[in-house]
Amino acid sequence: MTDFLLNKLVVIGVGLIGGSFSKGLKEAGLVKTSIGFGSKEVNLQKAVALGVVDSYTLDVKEAVKNADLILLAVPLGAMQGVLASIKPYLDDSTIVSDVGSSKISVIHAVQSVFGCLPQNFVAAHPIAGKEQSGVEACDAGLYRNHRVLLTPTAETSVKAVKKVTDLWESLGAIVSEMPPEYHDEVLAATSHLPHFLAYALVDMLHEHEELGNVFQFTAGGFKDFTRIASSDATMWRDIALNNKQAILKWLQNYQDELSKLSGLIECSDGEALLKLFDGAKQARDCYIVKSSK
Amino acid sequence: MTDFLLNKLVVIGVGLIGGSFSKGLKEAGLVKTSIGFGSKEVNLQKAVALGVVDSYTLDVKEAVKNADLILLAVPLGAMQGVLASIKPYLDDSTIVSDVGSSKISVIHAVQSVFGCLPQNFVAAHPIAGKEQSGVEACDAGLYRNHRVLLTPTAETSVKAVKKVTDLWESLGAIVSEMPPEYHDEVLAATSHLPHFLAYALVDMLHEHEELGNVFQFTAGGFKDFTRIASSDATMWRDIALNNKQAILKWLQNYQDELSKLSGLIECSDGEALLKLFDGAKQARDCYIVKSSK
Repeated sequence: MTDFLLNKLVVIGVGLIGGSFSKGLKEAGLVKTSIGFGSKEVNLQKAVALGVVDSYTLDVKEAVKNADLILLAVPLGAMQGVLASIKPYLDDSTIVSDVGSSKISVIHAVQSVFGCLPQNFVAAHPIAGKEQSGVEACDAGLYRNHRVLLTPTAETSVKAVKKVTDLWESLGAIVSEMPPEYHDEVLAATSHLPHFLAYALVDMLHEHEELGNVFQFTAGGFKDFTRIASSDATMWRDIALNNKQAILKWLQNYQDELSKLSGLIECSDGEALLKLFDGAKQARDCYIVKSSK
Repeated sequence: MTDFLLNKLVVIGVGLIGGSFSKGLKEAGLVKTSIGFGSKEVNLQKAVALGVVDSYTLDVKEAVKNADLILLAVPLGAMQGVLASIKPYLDDSTIVSDVGSSKISVIHAVQSVFGCLPQNFVAAHPIAGKEQSGVEACDAGLYRNHRVLLTPTAETSVKAVKKVTDLWESLGAIVSEMPPEYHDEVLAATSHLPHFLAYALVDMLHEHEELGNVFQFTAGGFKDFTRIASSDATMWRDIALNNKQAILKWLQNYQDELSKLSGLIECSDGEALLKLFDGAKQARDCYIVKSSK
């Protein structure tokens, strides 16, 4: 007989991220009942048919009542509205967590709706995804060996953090805790910036008509480099707006780096270019290629 | 009985690109004998052992004599020296071709060594590769469904162009002809620029100690985005130096694009950001994802 980690899980926004969380817990037999809630009934019906959730409801009161954990898996721009809609029906014992790609903005949304940070709110961010989105792309194994970053504050209950940690770890994820400010800096640099760089490159090449359709002359390197430019545009607009300061800072750092590089090319400094390229290659081979073996 | 396309092929610089060309022709039975030439005997011995070439020589005269085709597969920075070393032994009937990632600089190197553009010189660039380099990575199927761009000039013999085209097509490549100036522009924008952007990102994150080791918080998107930063550093230094003007132009265009993007984030223009991201996603999904199915 299985010990359930949760009796009632509610996923608000049943897309790739929220749906994969539910599907993984269901398949592991760790949740007694998983309920999808959202605004698009067709999507929720699909989620039930695909075994992503057990059932769904369009009634927020019914969804929230007696839930052990509510996972907010909506775009950052929708967080505040969803928080306001669940607030009237929320039990003190219900844990609320999220999967937002920036954390300060989500914490601000919670503060603005609740007037404080409830002890059972646990801000979280699973670093996983694919360029496909939506319920059809859900994958019970999506989080295996992937990082999940929790950003609890002084107000957050240790017990609630432990429950959220246990859930993610049961899906094979590696859970770390860090301050929300550090999270937003690191993610701006390592995830948000690369996405915007990829979008910018494709946008530029698409717009520059003087060269014609240059995409026909690209190969595997370009395809991989721009894979993240096939990500969901709404989600990334919301990230741009919700982690604005850190993103602007790292865009500026990157512009400075490009100016340095242009300078080296301009003056044909082969030695410095070799050092820069070789140092980057070594760093990547050391930190990225090895770590994924 | 096979009709050989070449009796004697000489590959100068037996790495991934030149070696894969030879291996593919050998395996298809299209070359009677394929000879490796270079300065590193250990590498050439490995090439013979791996079936990449039939034999090797360290004697340039022996290599060049009676060759039907000499493929220059050395880094751009080595082209001129290699051309000068083969010149004394070259027959008029021997076709010389290359695989350099920029074409104007190779054409200049040929002009400077020969005082003109010999009719049997055919500048070429196969758009294929992987982040692994070296003879161990050789792959007879590397060029299947990949583009090979030829940049003949008014001096180039039509017959020589046809021979080079036939060879690449026999490996499954798709051959196009274009002016060298257009080639260098397009490649600067679609290949050289993305490589430098990836190197710059890894260099910046590696250097910014304030954040600690941020690579541990990256996932698949970052790995794909930076894959090309694991490419051979010497080769990319040479490309930076040999296609300087076009690369500087496209780095500047890209900086302008990033300034535009920063401006939209700065003033929280969600509508324009969504339009930019969505347009880029549509373009990539249309031109890149579809074309590779």
